Amino acid sequence: MSYRAPIADIALAMRTAGGLDEAISSGLYGDLDGDTVEAILDEAAKMADGVLAPLNRTGDVDGARYENGAVVTPPGWKDAYRAWREAGWNALTGPEAYGGQGLPLLLGAAVAEMWHSANMAFGLGPLLTAGAIEAVAAHGSQELKDAYLAKLVSGEWTGTMNLTEPQAGSDLSALRTRAERAPDGSYRITGQKIFITYGEHDLTENICHLVLARLPDAPPGVKGISLFLAPKFLPDADGKPTVRNDLRASAIEHKLGIHGSPTCTMIFGDNGGATGFLIGEENRGLNCMFTMMNNARLAVGLEGVGIAERAYQQALAYARERRQGRSVHASGSGMSPIIEHPDVQRMLMTMRGYTQAARAICYMTAAALDRAHRETSPEKRKAAADRGALLTPIAKAFSTDIGMEAASLGVQIHGGMGFIEETGAAQHYRDARIAMIYEGANGIHGIDLVMRKLPLAEGEAVKTVIREIRDAASEAAGRNAPPFGKIGERLSSAADSLDRATDFMLRNLKEHPQQALAGATPYLRLFGLTLGGAALVRSALAATDDDSGRARIATARFFAQSLLPLTGGLELDVVEGGGFTGDAAAALAG
Amino acid sequence: MSYRAPIADIALAMRTAGGLDEAISSGLYGDLDGDTVEAILDEAAKMADGVLAPLNRTGDVDGARYENGAVVTPPGWKDAYRAWREAGWNALTGPEAYGGQGLPLLLGAAVAEMWHSANMAFGLGPLLTAGAIEAVAAHGSQELKDAYLAKLVSGEWTGTMNLTEPQAGSDLSALRTRAERAPDGSYRITGQKIFITYGEHDLTENICHLVLARLPDAPPGVKGISLFLAPKFLPDADGKPTVRNDLRASAIEHKLGIHGSPTCTMIFGDNGGATGFLIGEENRGLNCMFTMMNNARLAVGLEGVGIAERAYQQALAYARERRQGRSVHASGSGMSPIIEHPDVQRMLMTMRGYTQAARAICYMTAAALDRAHRETSPEKRKAAADRGALLTPIAKAFSTDIGMEAASLGVQIHGGMGFIEETGAAQHYRDARIAMIYEGANGIHGIDLVMRKLPLAEGEAVKTVIREIRDAASEAAGRNAPPFGKIGERLSSAADSLDRATDFMLRNLKEHPQQALAGATPYLRLFGLTLGGAALVRSALAATDDDSGRARIATARFFAQSLLPLTGGLELDVVEGGGFTGDAAAALAG
Repeated sequence: MSYRAPIADIALAMRTAGGLDEAISSGLYGDLDGDTVEAILDEAAKMADGVLAPLNRTGDVDGARYENGAVVTPPGWKDAYRAWREAGWNALTGPEAYGGQGLPLLLGAAVAEMWHSANMAFGLGPLLTAGAIEAVAAHGSQELKDAYLAKLVSGEWTGTMNLTEPQAGSDLSALRTRAERAPDGSYRITGQKIFITYGEHDLTENICHLVLARLPDAPPGVKGISLFLAPKFLPDADGKPTVRNDLRASAIEHKLGIHGSPTCTMIFGDNGGATGFLIGEENRGLNCMFTMMNNARLAVGLEGVGIAERAYQQALAYARERRQGRSVHASGSGMSPIIEHPDVQRMLMTMRGYTQAARAICYMTAAALDRAHRETSPEKRKAAADRGALLTPIAKAFSTDIGMEAASLGVQIHGGMGFIEETGAAQHYRDARIAMIYEGANGIHGIDLVMRKLPLAEGEAVKTVIREIRDAASEAAGRNAPPFGKIGERLSSAADSLDRATDFMLRNLKEHPQQALAGATPYLRLFGLTLGGAALVRSALAATDDDSGRARIATARFFAQSLLPLTGGLELDVVEGGGFTGDAAAALAG
Repeated sequence: MSYRAPIADIALAMRTAGGLDEAISSGLYGDLDGDTVEAILDEAAKMADGVLAPLNRTGDVDGARYENGAVVTPPGWKDAYRAWREAGWNALTGPEAYGGQGLPLLLGAAVAEMWHSANMAFGLGPLLTAGAIEAVAAHGSQELKDAYLAKLVSGEWTGTMNLTEPQAGSDLSALRTRAERAPDGSYRITGQKIFITYGEHDLTENICHLVLARLPDAPPGVKGISLFLAPKFLPDADGKPTVRNDLRASAIEHKLGIHGSPTCTMIFGDNGGATGFLIGEENRGLNCMFTMMNNARLAVGLEGVGIAERAYQQALAYARERRQGRSVHASGSGMSPIIEHPDVQRMLMTMRGYTQAARAICYMTAAALDRAHRETSPEKRKAAADRGALLTPIAKAFSTDIGMEAASLGVQIHGGMGFIEETGAAQHYRDARIAMIYEGANGIHGIDLVMRKLPLAEGEAVKTVIREIRDAASEAAGRNAPPFGKIGERLSSAADSLDRATDFMLRNLKEHPQQALAGATPYLRLFGLTLGGAALVRSALAATDDDSGRARIATARFFAQSLLPLTGGLELDVVEGGGFTGDAAAALAG
């Protein structure tokens, strides 16, 4: 079953969760109008459905291959990348000064979701290029920008993030890669990096590696890390990238999923050091890296949404076709399509609800980041930046958690067929798993949310979000329409849980950090469920009385009555469960 | 990291959840004594750790291969199977009249868990042989028993279950494989079966296929299905199995996991029909099949326990070794082992709690089945049979759900390394996924639990279990020991939820089946959590004041305070959520 981009759902979420109409009418997005947005979504859908999706399975089966230092991408990928890039998709949100279209991140999020649904391993390359663009644009010297940005924005060259080393994963303070100052103002980089996505490939003529390394006189820890750009090919005297830099891929990994995406071990400085150019200031590399990583975190959240949507579509199609058993209300003889069985409906509604909730959260985050850049007043920019910062870990971790869960439900709906690789459901289950790990393992995002994001604006950022959730709950409770069921009650109760758990965290994070850290993961889940549930409720409140409107209400109601009730238990876990850490050490010692 | 059978945990669960001591002292297990049980566990551990576990990864990498109608098992498997069989493991619980040791299912469950931890794809073959033995022993004619049972019990021959056809998976009424009566009293079987585990292999000289098929004059549906034994080789005039039967494997599947276990498409009757022998009566095959499947369901539950335990051990070892970041209480300089981080402890404690809870449920089920066969009074046998029937779907579905979840947490604890196949964590995540599907997809077990098992003994079977849970909660609440925290309160609250949800189900299952069916999956989860939590609490109540006792209490407390709180939400989902089915149809139509 191939993918069809859910344009209507995406456009709806852009409006109800992303605030598209208001942003357009207030001029936040310049001269962008609704028709243009629609046209762009339509074109993206054609590219996703027609070009990228058909290569998803061959990408999995053939995978990227390593051959004598080079990486060969799967059959068809080179042409697909060229077509995708030439259609301008890489430049969508890039800076206009370097050939980008300067379109909103909200729109970028919508089309990125389509790439990830269509072919997650393919979409991952441009995701990293976008991070490199972001870092160079924000922190690079004018010279560096002029030399690299146009090529990165167009997608003629790609970008990578060279962070991880064997001993330094989540903890970058342990980095060992060295950079030494060269007389010409550049640097010589020596070291080994692992897990470098698209570190080597044949899609483009050059690859720009963003590399974290340490200067000889750098202070220890994360305050001694600098960021460099080290291209695969350096410009020659004419400015053409023809001089091979002293860096190479030494191997690619054999992975559980995303086989089409080469994950490389990179060796810098076999022959004296790879030439690198400083981005930002010496020893301030972590700052620059966070610029690069923040958008990448949202982008990885969109991978979760994308894979959940794809798995949902495939399971839905199968459940309509496959006949087994007779449903309670079946008329006539013969077996019923399994979609008529309540338990299968439950699985599909869970997948649907999760997908729409995570999409809403990601689009909400993208819209906040747009405002953080585009609002005219500094106060509004600050508030939006705080909001974006608060939502980013939820967008990343909640969306990728549910991406895996949806993919797993997709396998389950297929029964035995789901375990057979040819069906394709299993690929989603394998591919989805990495998104919970890279760009910061999800546990790290829970910690980030609790320790760094809740205190933003002295708690006002999170309190604002909770107030918005309460408003939606009140409005839903005020609807005396039977299709709304207990939507208002359940959302209100979830908001209470979120509020109390937030207070608990704010009270404890400084004085009892162990308690706060122990509850970070269930707290993030509680936040994601409640925030996503509220988004579905707002979408239901705005629904018209037609089939699509009724579907919106039914989805919000299912989410509120079947998934939101778990928030009460998550609150208890956060507030009472955290005492385990002392005892756990004893239990785990045995 | 290799596997070490957790003998102490297993022995403890046999006593606290399986009631081993009481069963021995009351004579239920004949002359079996505690020392013998210990000796058997020790020997099994040696076999699991030393022989089977080392073949787990090669089984995954090399997999079973199909070559010209034959199946070649992975390197080393043939020798391992021979060593395993010759040590008598296949005969452990088999009937003594046919060379079995007639040992309790409780003991069989304990050692089966070890096989599945060590090498799930390997353990799966004997699992199916056990089902075949069960069916032939219970329903076969004396002649059939004499001809086949000894070989199956010793493991010289293996057994299979040929149920599934392309159009008939969960719904066996759609079976098309035909059986025609032959003049000699045997039958000629023609048809195609899919997903036949170990349908062909090179481990033994013969394979006994148990095949569901339909007689020409059979009534439609499940009341027209008969069960046959069709061996790969028929006995010749001297009784030696040398005559090739008219059946063959035409292909094996390319699967997500358990690559070492060949999953075959079987063709019966290329040349007029495979010779089969009726098991039980014509058209009563479903009955016989349920005999075969009931034990297999518990056995698949044990796969869930086994894979969860293996994933836990591997993650625990990694978390002790791997250093990243500094924990809050770290002294000195340098990075802390990640096991000191609360979020990693949470993941490990979740894996540990789930594993021990599922193990307790499975052993409890095995002990009930033992009593169903061994109690002297018919009343006690009936009560035990009802209890075993009630617990079996929970043992199957809850254990395999948490098997997958534990394997996924295991991947997460490994971070990026978890996604690399060489690490081995990813294999568990792939292998674990099938156990939720085969022997009845887990959704089917939810339905079985609600629709067929709750009404047993007019609800008395389930009410007895709930009373036992309440007793444990009361006793825990009565302990005024700080390490017990809120154990009693949380278990009591979970029991309340289970009780109310059970009443809801009992009220609705006849008159509003759609409502009951809609909540079957969260109901089963609610039951599994509460039952498993109660088992951990009982284990904690019996703990002595030493390291191992404190670890038991800490595990029970973590389970009660961090996992049991979800039961309140599951209850709400069951009781209020079920209304979605009408709306869902609308939402899913779009």
